[in-house]
Amino acid sequence: MQLNRLFLIALFASGLSAETGINAWLRYAPLPEEAARPYRAAIPAVLVTYGKSPVLMSAQAELLRGVRGMLGRTLRLEEKLPAEPALLIGTVADFPQLPRDTKLAADSYWLTTIRVNGMAHTVIAGGDERGTLYGAFAYLRKIGAGESLATLNDRQTPYAPVRWVNQWDNLEGTIERGYGGRSIFWDNLHVRDDLSRVGEYGRLLASLGINGCDISNVNANPKVLGADFVPQIARVADAFRPWGVRVAISVDFGSPKTLGGLDTFDPLDPHVAAWWKERIDALYAAIPDLGGIVLKADSEGRVGPSTYGRTHADAANVVARALQPHGGLLFYRGFVYDHHMDWKNPKNDRGRAAYDNFQPLDGKFDENVVVQIKNGPIDFQVREPASPLIGALEKTNQAIELQVTQEYFGQGRHTVFLVPMWKEVLDFDLHAAAGPTPVKALAAGKVFRRPTGGFVGVVNIGLDESWFGNHLSQANLYGFGRLAWNPDLTSRQINDEWTRLTFGSDPRVVETVSGIQLTSWRTYENYTGPLGLQTLTDIVGNHYGVSVEASERNGWGQWHNADEKGAGMDRTVATGTGFTGQYHPAVARMFESLENCPDDLLLFLHHVPYTHRLHSGKTVIQYIYDSHYEGAEKVAEYARQWKALQGRIDDRRYHEVLVQLEYQTGQALVWRDAVSNWFHRASGIADAKGRVGNHPGRVEAEAMKLDGYQVTDITPWEGASGGKGIACAAAKCTAATQYQGAAGWRTLHVEYFDQIDGISRFRLFIANQLVDEWSATDHIPTRKMDSSSSTMREIHGIALRPGDEIRIEAIPDGNEKAGLDYVEILPNSK
Amino acid sequence: MQLNRLFLIALFASGLSAETGINAWLRYAPLPEEAARPYRAAIPAVLVTYGKSPVLMSAQAELLRGVRGMLGRTLRLEEKLPAEPALLIGTVADFPQLPRDTKLAADSYWLTTIRVNGMAHTVIAGGDERGTLYGAFAYLRKIGAGESLATLNDRQTPYAPVRWVNQWDNLEGTIERGYGGRSIFWDNLHVRDDLSRVGEYGRLLASLGINGCDISNVNANPKVLGADFVPQIARVADAFRPWGVRVAISVDFGSPKTLGGLDTFDPLDPHVAAWWKERIDALYAAIPDLGGIVLKADSEGRVGPSTYGRTHADAANVVARALQPHGGLLFYRGFVYDHHMDWKNPKNDRGRAAYDNFQPLDGKFDENVVVQIKNGPIDFQVREPASPLIGALEKTNQAIELQVTQEYFGQGRHTVFLVPMWKEVLDFDLHAAAGPTPVKALAAGKVFRRPTGGFVGVVNIGLDESWFGNHLSQANLYGFGRLAWNPDLTSRQINDEWTRLTFGSDPRVVETVSGIQLTSWRTYENYTGPLGLQTLTDIVGNHYGVSVEASERNGWGQWHNADEKGAGMDRTVATGTGFTGQYHPAVARMFESLENCPDDLLLFLHHVPYTHRLHSGKTVIQYIYDSHYEGAEKVAEYARQWKALQGRIDDRRYHEVLVQLEYQTGQALVWRDAVSNWFHRASGIADAKGRVGNHPGRVEAEAMKLDGYQVTDITPWEGASGGKGIACAAAKCTAATQYQGAAGWRTLHVEYFDQIDGISRFRLFIANQLVDEWSATDHIPTRKMDSSSSTMREIHGIALRPGDEIRIEAIPDGNEKAGLDYVEILPNSK
Repeated sequence: MQLNRLFLIALFASGLSAETGINAWLRYAPLPEEAARPYRAAIPAVLVTYGKSPVLMSAQAELLRGVRGMLGRTLRLEEKLPAEPALLIGTVADFPQLPRDTKLAADSYWLTTIRVNGMAHTVIAGGDERGTLYGAFAYLRKIGAGESLATLNDRQTPYAPVRWVNQWDNLEGTIERGYGGRSIFWDNLHVRDDLSRVGEYGRLLASLGINGCDISNVNANPKVLGADFVPQIARVADAFRPWGVRVAISVDFGSPKTLGGLDTFDPLDPHVAAWWKERIDALYAAIPDLGGIVLKADSEGRVGPSTYGRTHADAANVVARALQPHGGLLFYRGFVYDHHMDWKNPKNDRGRAAYDNFQPLDGKFDENVVVQIKNGPIDFQVREPASPLIGALEKTNQAIELQVTQEYFGQGRHTVFLVPMWKEVLDFDLHAAAGPTPVKALAAGKVFRRPTGGFVGVVNIGLDESWFGNHLSQANLYGFGRLAWNPDLTSRQINDEWTRLTFGSDPRVVETVSGIQLTSWRTYENYTGPLGLQTLTDIVGNHYGVSVEASERNGWGQWHNADEKGAGMDRTVATGTGFTGQYHPAVARMFESLENCPDDLLLFLHHVPYTHRLHSGKTVIQYIYDSHYEGAEKVAEYARQWKALQGRIDDRRYHEVLVQLEYQTGQALVWRDAVSNWFHRASGIADAKGRVGNHPGRVEAEAMKLDGYQVTDITPWEGASGGKGIACAAAKCTAATQYQGAAGWRTLHVEYFDQIDGISRFRLFIANQLVDEWSATDHIPTRKMDSSSSTMREIHGIALRPGDEIRIEAIPDGNEKAGLDYVEILPNSK
Repeated sequence: MQLNRLFLIALFASGLSAETGINAWLRYAPLPEEAARPYRAAIPAVLVTYGKSPVLMSAQAELLRGVRGMLGRTLRLEEKLPAEPALLIGTVADFPQLPRDTKLAADSYWLTTIRVNGMAHTVIAGGDERGTLYGAFAYLRKIGAGESLATLNDRQTPYAPVRWVNQWDNLEGTIERGYGGRSIFWDNLHVRDDLSRVGEYGRLLASLGINGCDISNVNANPKVLGADFVPQIARVADAFRPWGVRVAISVDFGSPKTLGGLDTFDPLDPHVAAWWKERIDALYAAIPDLGGIVLKADSEGRVGPSTYGRTHADAANVVARALQPHGGLLFYRGFVYDHHMDWKNPKNDRGRAAYDNFQPLDGKFDENVVVQIKNGPIDFQVREPASPLIGALEKTNQAIELQVTQEYFGQGRHTVFLVPMWKEVLDFDLHAAAGPTPVKALAAGKVFRRPTGGFVGVVNIGLDESWFGNHLSQANLYGFGRLAWNPDLTSRQINDEWTRLTFGSDPRVVETVSGIQLTSWRTYENYTGPLGLQTLTDIVGNHYGVSVEASERNGWGQWHNADEKGAGMDRTVATGTGFTGQYHPAVARMFESLENCPDDLLLFLHHVPYTHRLHSGKTVIQYIYDSHYEGAEKVAEYARQWKALQGRIDDRRYHEVLVQLEYQTGQALVWRDAVSNWFHRASGIADAKGRVGNHPGRVEAEAMKLDGYQVTDITPWEGASGGKGIACAAAKCTAATQYQGAAGWRTLHVEYFDQIDGISRFRLFIANQLVDEWSATDHIPTRKMDSSSSTMREIHGIALRPGDEIRIEAIPDGNEKAGLDYVEILPNSK
């Protein structure tokens, strides 16, 4: 006990704290002495803040905290310009010494030096107070990332005014597609009593220049517009306000009827318009700086204007007009499609939907409406072309919607750094007008000079100390925010900054983390769905495990259309759905042509035989095999590389990330085998390298001697080795096999099924000796024995002798039947 | 939540566990790949255990655990000699292949290689099963410490049969002089329900070859002999038995009367003898392998044979005779002295007591009695000569009692590695007979060929995960055990082994820990009581903080006898107490002579003027000043050196040890100033280097501008700077001063009083800016503002300007009055 108490005292004393991840990139860990020295020399001792507002107080407190943490020094707070060098923070009007023509836009900042009476002072001048706050974070970021302050002159304006995040938080406290715990805002249909995490989230957002946050799910609960919610939303706004983050909410378009008691929600009905006005006025009375409202209508079961034969513009405008007097924005989601589409009609294409729905309405939306468009035409898949709608709105505000939460990217269990993917989309030129018209410029409203526009990230952080359930996933929020501020930053710049701030500047750490993060998207694509097949996941279910056919033959849209002859969705004008024709000619030509279409998008745009040769000369089928083996091996390599960082980062995060990478290593094998086997069966074409379907050392559970276990088909079949597994139908079961290989040290992989609804126990015996035991305690999102629950237990250093019995004893629990897929015996890894 | 669950799974998978310290030197952390390789090559895959007893099963399980942990391999357990190289464990009789004349004593082991049918097998052969267990630990220790197994041939016999530990655990669950939490055995006058920690302690003890443990305080509660305690003691014995540790208990000599209801406890009364026999028979009926009984009588208020005019031999023998038929030992503590001695008689000397009490009884004790003698004549002080009694018993068994718990050594809050001190005593030749007669040989019974003897360590570990409340203190238990096994090991060998096993073999770690541990005794002596002054602590109180005069002018014995002219206790035959005459002539001559007496013991044996010159030429008074400044600086250096180990050992233990060293740094300054000031005032002789009493930058709290605070005298005066402090007599108090020095970055030391009976809060303002706040949450063993509670808060990186107000605001709590001693302003350390 004594030690613990002492420890707590010390935490306060030295500014140390356990590295839980909660401070993310704002840890302000002490710099190594050598790195700290030049900053200690450069930074003035005095800090003068011109003003007292909460946002300025945040900036001041952050500078104190950051300098104290990184450099071990406490800045002196003074009210007047001292007779010594000082750090001065305020808005540009506070510094008449700056050039007369200095105008800084809202949210902008200038870090520079001024001279007063011959004395040089460092200045953090904001275009407004929020700009000052952003400047303070920028100043600290330079220190943490190792940038010189010697000739400080950094003037920055954000690329776009809209830099928002959306949280798909349900008022019950759950989060749709959230993987970092429950909501920081809501619990049990009320705002949380303790909103301290909201303040902390606001701080993280402010450090990136993010200025708005939608705090309720776009699949909205009408209750959020009730009078009783106004003070609750106001509490959240109060917690965010010192960080310059404006609150927004998502609403249900049917609210006038379901909540308001009207007999219609027809947007053209004056009573409906009056109802919206009354509710929105009430919100602004309590929250004068409310950012606005987000609306998802006529999509995935949400009601919308189609009920009354009205347009999306009618729907958007009726709400927007209520917001307009208060300066609020209405975000109307472009994610509208028919999920009951007739899949038997080969001309039907969900990919066309956004353009088909919204392009004809261009110019019909009010000036304070922003159409919020997903980066791709489908839904956050591992590889999509830029949405053609982005290039098709000339008289309508838009914002690009990027998904930070890893819905189709392993859900916080797989490492995928999304910035390179976003960069590829943002830099893609849609040729929407003369000169360069990259997606980023179109989204920001720069091409057609729209009054507003920008970037919306779907983040979905939760109460977990790591925010995302995975420390490496924090880089995606960091990257989103940095790109929203400046999409010209490179992936490497962003990752390098993030790594230094998050894990420190040890070159080995920076190099290793970069090596993992910068390749992780390609790696994930390689073992999930390459060549534009999209994420071959359980698309009608949990969006997590592999299920190659889940996207086919249902109303949610054809995805890859693979059969025995070939694969790919023909979206050409000539022979397909005509999707390519939604692009401006230069892009359309490239996509339409099999010769010019990039390999990475080939099967998104064309249907080709498996023997089709890519630009590299490799056949499509061999590429599918190769990429899956490469991807799975790469993940194993990540885990090995990470192990070399022990001691170079704190133990806790080191171990937590290692565990995650080791789990991912196992899942990547499941994906590899499932997709390879599926295409092998479909195509009938053998892997030129002989790997697919050939697993020496693997013993299928269904081939073992079973006691109490029953063989069961796994659905879909590719989710299990051999398409089958075994499930325990008794209180205790055993599966045994006799080892026939040579004597030696071996590593064993036991592939078992760890569902969410039980904690089965397993014990592994070799020649009657217990060598390992474990429980299936993970909370993978499935109640079935399938590819999602398939989990690898790796056991090193087992001495096997010919004739040894390998026996697994298992005790099922609840609905979880202690399922097993196979045991694989490999050379020992050590 | 997701991460935490994953993390737990991983712990099981990889054998990792949070480094709490609970596994001490038996962590079996994975070796670095390069270090593991030769062991992986050398160690057979098969383990055969000849026998099934619990002790052998412990050996087998430990080998499995150790090899799996360090090398990542699971040994194959087989029952018969396999047709491949194997590791064979059993007693010597199981290996007829060993040379015919192989005889191994009890507890001994032989690690060697045998050939059977041309096949080489590694053998761990014990003289008995306990020897086999010790051999298994030795085998694993070699791997962990990096010793080669290439030509394994290590045959070891323990130096002495008695290798025991004593725990001063009260049946209520507290531990007298224990600093690692509450008892692992007892709680609320019952044995604990959960004895898992007893098993873990047994494992630690067995790894060192310790074979007995007294589980109840020598200041004994008579209840322990009650019938209801027999099954409770038996439960503890059951937990220890698989580790070969025999249980003992301490008893109260008055028990026949107080517990048994007799009207006497006269050892010569037959009813008393019968009572002892009956109780001890009952114990052995339940615990056939009970180790024996420990008895403290006629000492520090304990009743004893003197009540009836009987001798210690009478007392010991009456109990010993009851033990004899069962093979039990009776340990009779030699720590007998009069604590109501007339201090005014300069011939009186507590140091003489052990010899005076026991030497005349030599030969009067039964063969199963062991007189347990503290290493020095006083009581575990920082520097004492070897006890003369050790050389004076020729016909009596003895064991040397060493104190592992740091009663006078900072109580787990200061780092003191005691092995070098023990080594100095154990190697000291008492010239008790012809030839070398070092203390270790005398204690072990080797000199006078006694049937038993050896080593007893007072350990007093508790429920804290670190066992001692301090990770570095674990080295003392390790060192005690290793010395009890083989006192010829060097301090460096022991520390090196311990460090490698406890923190790993990183050369920088081994070097740093060695640098700290091997000098730490001298360092502690330097800042507490050098030259044989003994630990100048609060000897009649908590034995923790400094109190120079506490040992003087009371019945507990004169200690240093310092006055205005000089210091030291004259124990010579010529002019003093005659203590030196208790030694054999060669030693007596050395101690009697001022010329030959070692400087380190000078003031223990002689009274000299402060101007007396040591062998080095330095005066006594200047040595006192210098050693205190050197010692305090050395501790600060330890903390700095430790900081360089971040990342080289696990974060948790790194931080916990750092906190401890930083606290010790502050306490060493308190000691330095207190002792230096006391001798400065006593001697009137200035420090030649001008340091003592001269603290530029220090502002006494009593000299500050006070609001609510009252100036108070500190007792003893040397415990506070200036002899005074301030205590808050209101609900909230402030103390302020104006800074007059030059502008610059500064470090502040705020010396405050952190008592056990309140949690005061402090806030430090510079020029009205809050720069630090803390709470006095520590549990230092004092309810007073004194040297024990005096605690340093160090605040780095403060920018001071002339005229700045330095203000402390404090809120007292409970009996703790938010006491302050001083504020010191130093150059910034960074």
